[in-house]
Amino acid sequence: MSVTPAEPVAWPAGKRAAACFTFDIDAESVVLNIDAAHADRMSVMSHQAYGPLVGVPRLLALLARHDVRSTFFVPGYTAVRYPDVVRAIVDGGHEVAHHGYLHEVLTGMTPEQEGVILDRGTDVLAALTGEAPVGFRAPMWELNWHSPELLAERGFLYDTSLMDADYPYELRVGATGSSLVEIPVQWALDDWEQYCYLPEISGSGLIESPRKAAEIWRLEFEGLRAVGGCFVLTNHPFLSGRPSRAAALEELVEHVVSCSDVWVAPLRDVAQHVRRLGLSPRSVERPDPADF
Amino acid sequence: MSVTPAEPVAWPAGKRAAACFTFDIDAESVVLNIDAAHADRMSVMSHQAYGPLVGVPRLLALLARHDVRSTFFVPGYTAVRYPDVVRAIVDGGHEVAHHGYLHEVLTGMTPEQEGVILDRGTDVLAALTGEAPVGFRAPMWELNWHSPELLAERGFLYDTSLMDADYPYELRVGATGSSLVEIPVQWALDDWEQYCYLPEISGSGLIESPRKAAEIWRLEFEGLRAVGGCFVLTNHPFLSGRPSRAAALEELVEHVVSCSDVWVAPLRDVAQHVRRLGLSPRSVERPDPADF
Amino acid sequence: MSVTPAEPVAWPAGKRAAACFTFDIDAESVVLNIDAAHADRMSVMSHQAYGPLVGVPRLLALLARHDVRSTFFVPGYTAVRYPDVVRAIVDGGHEVAHHGYLHEVLTGMTPEQEGVILDRGTDVLAALTGEAPVGFRAPMWELNWHSPELLAERGFLYDTSLMDADYPYELRVGATGSSLVEIPVQWALDDWEQYCYLPEISGSGLIESPRKAAEIWRLEFEGLRAVGGCFVLTNHPFLSGRPSRAAALEELVEHVVSCSDVWVAPLRDVAQHVRRLGLSPRSVERPDPADF
Amino acid sequence: MSVTPAEPVAWPAGKRAAACFTFDIDAESVVLNIDAAHADRMSVMSHQAYGPLVGVPRLLALLARHDVRSTFFVPGYTAVRYPDVVRAIVDGGHEVAHHGYLHEVLTGMTPEQEGVILDRGTDVLAALTGEAPVGFRAPMWELNWHSPELLAERGFLYDTSLMDADYPYELRVGATGSSLVEIPVQWALDDWEQYCYLPEISGSGLIESPRKAAEIWRLEFEGLRAVGGCFVLTNHPFLSGRPSRAAALEELVEHVVSCSDVWVAPLRDVAQHVRRLGLSPRSVERPDPADF
Repeated sequence: MSVTPAEPVAWPAGKRAAACFTFDIDAESVVLNIDAAHADRMSVMSHQAYGPLVGVPRLLALLARHDVRSTFFVPGYTAVRYPDVVRAIVDGGHEVAHHGYLHEVLTGMTPEQEGVILDRGTDVLAALTGEAPVGFRAPMWELNWHSPELLAERGFLYDTSLMDADYPYELRVGATGSSLVEIPVQWALDDWEQYCYLPEISGSGLIESPRKAAEIWRLEFEGLRAVGGCFVLTNHPFLSGRPSRAAALEELVEHVVSCSDVWVAPLRDVAQHVRRLGLSPRSVERPDPADF
Repeated sequence: MSVTPAEPVAWPAGKRAAACFTFDIDAESVVLNIDAAHADRMSVMSHQAYGPLVGVPRLLALLARHDVRSTFFVPGYTAVRYPDVVRAIVDGGHEVAHHGYLHEVLTGMTPEQEGVILDRGTDVLAALTGEAPVGFRAPMWELNWHSPELLAERGFLYDTSLMDADYPYELRVGATGSSLVEIPVQWALDDWEQYCYLPEISGSGLIESPRKAAEIWRLEFEGLRAVGGCFVLTNHPFLSGRPSRAAALEELVEHVVSCSDVWVAPLRDVAQHVRRLGLSPRSVERPDPADF
Repeated sequence: MSVTPAEPVAWPAGKRAAACFTFDIDAESVVLNIDAAHADRMSVMSHQAYGPLVGVPRLLALLARHDVRSTFFVPGYTAVRYPDVVRAIVDGGHEVAHHGYLHEVLTGMTPEQEGVILDRGTDVLAALTGEAPVGFRAPMWELNWHSPELLAERGFLYDTSLMDADYPYELRVGATGSSLVEIPVQWALDDWEQYCYLPEISGSGLIESPRKAAEIWRLEFEGLRAVGGCFVLTNHPFLSGRPSRAAALEELVEHVVSCSDVWVAPLRDVAQHVRRLGLSPRSVERPDPADF
Repeated sequence: MSVTPAEPVAWPAGKRAAACFTFDIDAESVVLNIDAAHADRMSVMSHQAYGPLVGVPRLLALLARHDVRSTFFVPGYTAVRYPDVVRAIVDGGHEVAHHGYLHEVLTGMTPEQEGVILDRGTDVLAALTGEAPVGFRAPMWELNWHSPELLAERGFLYDTSLMDADYPYELRVGATGSSLVEIPVQWALDDWEQYCYLPEISGSGLIESPRKAAEIWRLEFEGLRAVGGCFVLTNHPFLSGRPSRAAALEELVEHVVSCSDVWVAPLRDVAQHVRRLGLSPRSVERPDPADF
C-alpha cells in the first residue's frame, strides 16, 4: 500500500497560491435529475431558471468589473435550454466545462452508462462553443473509480471532483500510464450548503446570511493562500446570483484580486500549468475489501 | 426556445426600487392541510393561533406607526375562524389577498381541483371584505403550469409565487394572449426558514436569532434596491409576531421607509403600476421532456 | 365562533412584566420514552445523567447567587432515580412541578391513559416533597384538548404548555365553568433547539454557541418586557448545565434580575397571582372539522 | 439507588484544570462502516483520505509548534491503510489509542462481537507502535454497559466515551472490584457537528464557520477551567485539517497553552495521574426497567 499525499506545486512567476472562481449552471437539470416529475412544478422550475436568466448575467458583469476569467460548468440540458447564456459566457472570455447532461449523479453507473452521458454533454457544448470541453466536474462531486480513465480516453485535460489535497496533481489513470490533472475541491467552498432550500427537494431548511458564507470562504482562502494551495470556490448562479449574495461574492473577489501573490485563473489555465510542470502521476487506490 | 429574462421596470416618479411587506396568515390552516389529525393537538393549534390572535394586531400597529400599507394573504379557513382579524386588516387600509382555502399545496392538482379551491377561498374573502381578492400567492409558493390561466380567467390581476426575476413582469397566460402580473419572491425573503419549529411537522429543528434573519433581509433589500428591483418580504404572524422578531422587523421597516428612493406599497399597487406600464407579456416555458 | 386573544394582566406593585426561569429535568426519561431499548446505550444514558448529577447542582448554585426562585419540572422516573436531586431542589426554595412519569408525549392518548400518568407522576413527587405538585408542563409541550379538564379535576392550579399569548390567562375548562391558569411558552425560549444533539435520537445535528442562544433569549426578554408579558425560559440541565452554557445563562439571569420593573418568580407564584386577579376565563376552541 | 456525581480531582502541582487535544483519524473507516459499498465512491473516499494525507501532517506540525502532546484515536483499518501516518504520530511524541477496527458502532453488540473488534484493533496498533494501546474511545461515543469490563480485562487503563461529568473518575467495572479511568467527553466539544457534510452519509447539510466552532470550544474551555474540569476536544483531521479550520484550532491551542493554570496533556497522562490519586471507584447504574 502506498497512498501518499499530493505535493505542493510551483505557481507561475511571483505567485504563491492560486484562486479559481467557478460556477455550476445547474439550473433545471439538477432538479429534473432528482425526479423528472419536478418539471410539473412551475415555481420550482422558476427558482432554478433564475440562475441562467438573472444570475449568470449579473455574475458575468461582476467578473468583468474585476477582470477575472472563470470556469462555468454547464450541464448539456442547460445549454440546450439556454444557448444564449452559454454564448455570453464564451463571449466574456470564460471557460465552459462539462457537468453531465442532466446533472446525473454517477454513483453506481457502469462505464458504458457514464460514457453515454459524457459524450452527450460534450456534443451539446462543442456544437455551441466550437470546441470540446477539456474540464469535467462530476455532479454532486461524485466520481467513480473508473471515471478518470473515461475522461482521459476522451481527451479531457482535467477533473475537479476529488477532495484529498490542497494542491492540484497529476492523477494516474488506469493501467496505461496516462494521467489526468486533478484540481481538488471541498464542500465548505460551495454555496449550496449555505443558501439552498427547495422544500422536499434539497436543503436542511435553513438559509444562511451572505456574510457568514463569505466569512467561511475568505478564511479558507487565507488558509490555502498561506500554504500555497489552490482555492477553488463553487457558486451556483441560481443561488449566488441573488443581489446580496453576489455583493458578498464581489467583496471576496475584490479581496482575492488585490492579493498580488495569488494567481487568479480559470481551471483550464491551472490545469495547463500543472501539465507543463511534468509532475509524476500520483496513484489513488480504492480501499481493498480484503482489509475491512 | 426563447426563455428570456424579465426586464427592469420603471417605478413611479423619483423612485428607483420598490418594497412590499407581506404577511401570510397561515394560522391553523397550514398545519391542518398537512394532516387534519393535527387538530387534536391543542398545543400545536395554540402555536398557530398566536398569529391571528397576537401577531396580527401587533404587526398592524407596527405598520401603522410607519404609515406602511401591506398585503395580507389569508387562507379561507383562517378567515372563517378569525373574521374579526380580517376586518381589522381591512380597517388598517391593507390589502387582503388569496392564499388557498386550507393552505393547499397545489402540486399535482388538476385544474378542476384547483378551481374549486380558488373559488372557495374567494367566496370567503369576498363575503368578509366586500370585494374579490385580486392577488394570489400559492401555498408553499407551488404554482402549477396551468395555474396562471385559472387565475386570469377568474379576474385576478397578479400572482406572487414565482422566483425567476428581480422585477415584476406581465406573464403570458395560456394561448389567449391575456396575461397576469407576476411579482417574484424568493426563499431567503421568508421568515419560515429562520424561525419555524414544530416537532414532527415542520422545521429543521434550529431556531435563529431575529438579528440574523434581519441581516439577511436587509442585505437583500440593499441588493435589490441597487438593481432597481422589487423587494417582497414574507412574514408569518405566528412567527414574526413574537415580540423580539416584530422588533427586528420594525427596525427593517424603519430603514426601508427612510430610503426616499424606495416605493413602499402593497402588492396590488405594484401590480396596478406594472399593468399600466403596458409591458409586453413574457413567456415562461415548461421544460420539454423530449430534451432531457 | 369567538376566539379572542388573552388580555394583558396587572403585575404586582411596581412591576411591568414577569420572568420565570424554569428547568425540565428530563434526564433519562425523555430518551427512554422514545425507545426503552436506549437504556442499553451506556453513553446515551450518561449524557442524560449529566443533568441531575452535574447540571442541577450547578444551576441551583447559580440561582442562589442571584436569589432567584425557580420551577423545576421533574418526570416521575427522574425523581425515582435521583431522589436526592429533588430534595436539593426543594431545599433551595424552588418549586417542583409535574412533567409526566417518563416524559410521555400525550398526543393520541385517551383521558384514561393520561390520567394514569398524571397520578403516577404526582404520587412520586408528593412522596418526596410532601405535597402534590400544582403545576404541569406537558412533555414536548403537547397538550390534548381534554388535558386541562383532567388537570383541573386533580387540583392543579396551572398548566404551562400552550403558545397562544404573551400573558398568562384563566383557561376555561370543559363544560363545568371551572378554569386553570395557563402560562404560555414558546419554542424559541427553549435550549433544546440550540444545544441538543443525540445521534439517531434527537437534534438537527448542529450545535449552537451559548452566545447565540443567549442573544435570542435576551432579545425576546426585552420584547416581552416592553409589552408587559411573562417571559418563561425553559432550560434542560443536561444541556444548559454544561459550564459555558450555564455561564451564558447566568449573564441573562443577572440582567433580568437587574431590571427593577420585572417580577422574577417561580411559575406557581405567577399562577397564584393570576388566580387572585379573578380574570374571566378564556375559551380556546378546537378547530371544527366541518369548517375545513 | 445511589447514582452520585463524580468528584473534582486534584491536578498536578500548580494546576487548576486540564486540557486534552484529541484527534480521531476516522478516514475511510467511518464511512465504510456505515456501508461498505461507499468504497465505490471515489470522491467520498478522497474526502476521507484528506485526513491522514493532509490533515494529520498539518496538525502534527501545529502541535509541535506549541509543544503540545496529544492523543490520536486510530481505527485499525486506518492504520492498515496509512501505516506511515501512525508512525509519524508516534514519532511526534503523541499517544496512539484504540478507536475500533472499522469505526464499528458498538450498540447492540454482544461482548463476544465486541471483543473480536477490540483484539483486532489492538493487534494492528501494537504491531505498528510496539505497544498495545491503553486508551479507548468508542466510535460515535457509543459504549455498551458491558464494554468497560471488556476493556479492563484487556488491560486498558482508560476509556473516554461517557458524558456524565466534568472530571475524570475511576469507573467501577463489573462485579470484580476492578476499575477503569473514565475521561468524559461531550458533543459540543467535537468538530463533526460544525463541519461535516457528506451527502446521504452524514451531516445536517449545513457547514459552519471556523470562528463559530472555535467560539463554542473556547467558551467551554473557559467554563471547564473555572470549575477545575478536564477539557477534552475532539477533532477529525479530514475536517479540522483544512487550512482555515486548523488556523482556528491553532488560535485555541495557543490560548490554552498560554494559561499557566491549565495542564495540557495527552489522555494517557491524565489517566495515569487519576489512577495515582487512588480514587474510590464510582458506580454507574443501568436504568432498571422495573422503574419505567
